Amino acid sequence: MMEVMAPSALLLMYPGLDARVLDAASRNRLGRIVDLVSPEPLTGTAGAPDAEIVLSGWGCPPLDADALDRLPSLRLVAHAAGTVRGIVTDALWERDITVTSAAAANAVPVAEFTFAAIVMLGKDVFGIRDRHREARGTATVVDHASVGNRGLRIGIIGASMIGRLVIERLRTLDVEVVVSDPFLDSAAASALGVVGLELDDLLATSDVVSIHAPALPSTHHLLDAAALARMRDGAWLLNTARGSLVDTAALEAELVSGRLSAFVDTPDPEPLPTGSPLYDLPNVVLTPHIAGSLGNEVGRMGELAVTEVERYVAGEAPLHPVTRADLERIA
Amino acid sequence: MMEVMAPSALLLMYPGLDARVLDAASRNRLGRIVDLVSPEPLTGTAGAPDAEIVLSGWGCPPLDADALDRLPSLRLVAHAAGTVRGIVTDALWERDITVTSAAAANAVPVAEFTFAAIVMLGKDVFGIRDRHREARGTATVVDHASVGNRGLRIGIIGASMIGRLVIERLRTLDVEVVVSDPFLDSAAASALGVVGLELDDLLATSDVVSIHAPALPSTHHLLDAAALARMRDGAWLLNTARGSLVDTAALEAELVSGRLSAFVDTPDPEPLPTGSPLYDLPNVVLTPHIAGSLGNEVGRMGELAVTEVERYVAGEAPLHPVTRADLERIA
Repeated sequence: MMEVMAPSALLLMYPGLDARVLDAASRNRLGRIVDLVSPEPLTGTAGAPDAEIVLSGWGCPPLDADALDRLPSLRLVAHAAGTVRGIVTDALWERDITVTSAAAANAVPVAEFTFAAIVMLGKDVFGIRDRHREARGTATVVDHASVGNRGLRIGIIGASMIGRLVIERLRTLDVEVVVSDPFLDSAAASALGVVGLELDDLLATSDVVSIHAPALPSTHHLLDAAALARMRDGAWLLNTARGSLVDTAALEAELVSGRLSAFVDTPDPEPLPTGSPLYDLPNVVLTPHIAGSLGNEVGRMGELAVTEVERYVAGEAPLHPVTRADLERIA
Repeated sequence: MMEVMAPSALLLMYPGLDARVLDAASRNRLGRIVDLVSPEPLTGTAGAPDAEIVLSGWGCPPLDADALDRLPSLRLVAHAAGTVRGIVTDALWERDITVTSAAAANAVPVAEFTFAAIVMLGKDVFGIRDRHREARGTATVVDHASVGNRGLRIGIIGASMIGRLVIERLRTLDVEVVVSDPFLDSAAASALGVVGLELDDLLATSDVVSIHAPALPSTHHLLDAAALARMRDGAWLLNTARGSLVDTAALEAELVSGRLSAFVDTPDPEPLPTGSPLYDLPNVVLTPHIAGSLGNEVGRMGELAVTEVERYVAGEAPLHPVTRADLERIA
């Protein structure tokens, strides 16, 4: 019986992060098919000339020419996180290396969080909680004229992987879902069970607007002062995508005036300066980029990365490859 | 052609509530099949001796012998709210009057809210938001060791109408759902796709415990000091049902010590006294009974009540009749 050498692999991520990325099951699966250069994650590529596989995560350095020269055998980068933008380089694309992303696994908690946030915003739960706390039960703090999730119009900007998962969850509510996406024609919108709209029309008619578009040069400040001005009085803006999509100064003006409300998980800059009024405004929920994989959710990305390694070792096509061209339209 | 007289009906609820209970479509449907004693809601039963139908809502007085003596023709009470406990009486049950409830319509927003709350609690969103606000972006406020919704065990107390809707939504998460309900055998639990557990085992092993049992003498203080003591360190208790199910003093002790956390929408008493520490504790989310129908959601209950009136007029069986015996096991 011929013995097959397991391919050499290394973990490239923040020290200690491997404990969250690779749960016991994932580590066992990985151990059965690769020979890890080190059980601990490395932060650089030295000392692994035979490595065929990189399993990367947050903290992985950019894989530039220098880094890659030290990994002449590299064939697969299985990234156990969302966007690969921080690690891919021209030098990487020029070599015959497959790159996979765990964006599909990271999309799961973002969509769960976004859906939950939409339900909570529709009932003004954060505001009611704050006012109830302040009034200590001695005053009515619910404005019945402006709350409730029945029959709302929810506007989704971007039929991205996350956008589609949010749409799927929204179909379980009594709401109308409209979507704006330059790559989504009306047939595709119908297939998703939603109405496709131009961005301006979506903004002008939605009760809650949720952003799920990628951060690209073409989407920078997609929601600028003019776009925000189109939104309905009293509407909510929800950003669990990227801060660069929204003009912070313009949004701040709309929030300070009280005309709009917002749930911002991804401000710009991140975090906001300590003097930002968004920390204090009663019509703002501000969280520090927590919609995506957090705590035990990080292991879902590791699980998917290990699946990609298994597929590579078995000679199967990757589930979620990323190409240089993809990065012109995805996050 | 014979002319058929539309049956006489009256609205019994708080003045003004009809605007929320009956949206334009519901009012049109009602107008086509009944002859309203008054387009405005009444708060008593005088002056309607021919009324065959009461469409009731919050604020309807108890339908006792005196009230019913003034409604000798009454055959249907279609209640446009959840529990009918506040309006039914022995005198009502003794007459041949059908009572229907809109609990099924009220269950919808409660289940939406509960599901959203579970997702938010699993990521400690309220706590993170509060600490982030306090730190103004200058400190890490996420405890990665204790957050994330992947793989949690969610314990549902009560496979009630609401409990079942919550279970259905929870099946869309990567969580394990366990249920405790004295009326649910293991075959029925399997049919729901969940594991049935004794209450003590559910409490001892769940990361989040959500209460969906009815308030009955037999469930008074179901969660007493001993039951709460069984819960895991760091677990969340979520109550969107009724305050009487939980011993407030015992819960307060567990929350003040920081051993447990809680989201309480239905405290006991309601509202809590102004001196209650639950208004201030960082591990508590306290809201003023908002999980159920609020604002535009109230119209869903009116829609169902009008459907019951339509069925009565058409000679069809009610969708959601309530009998005296039912009240021994439902809310």
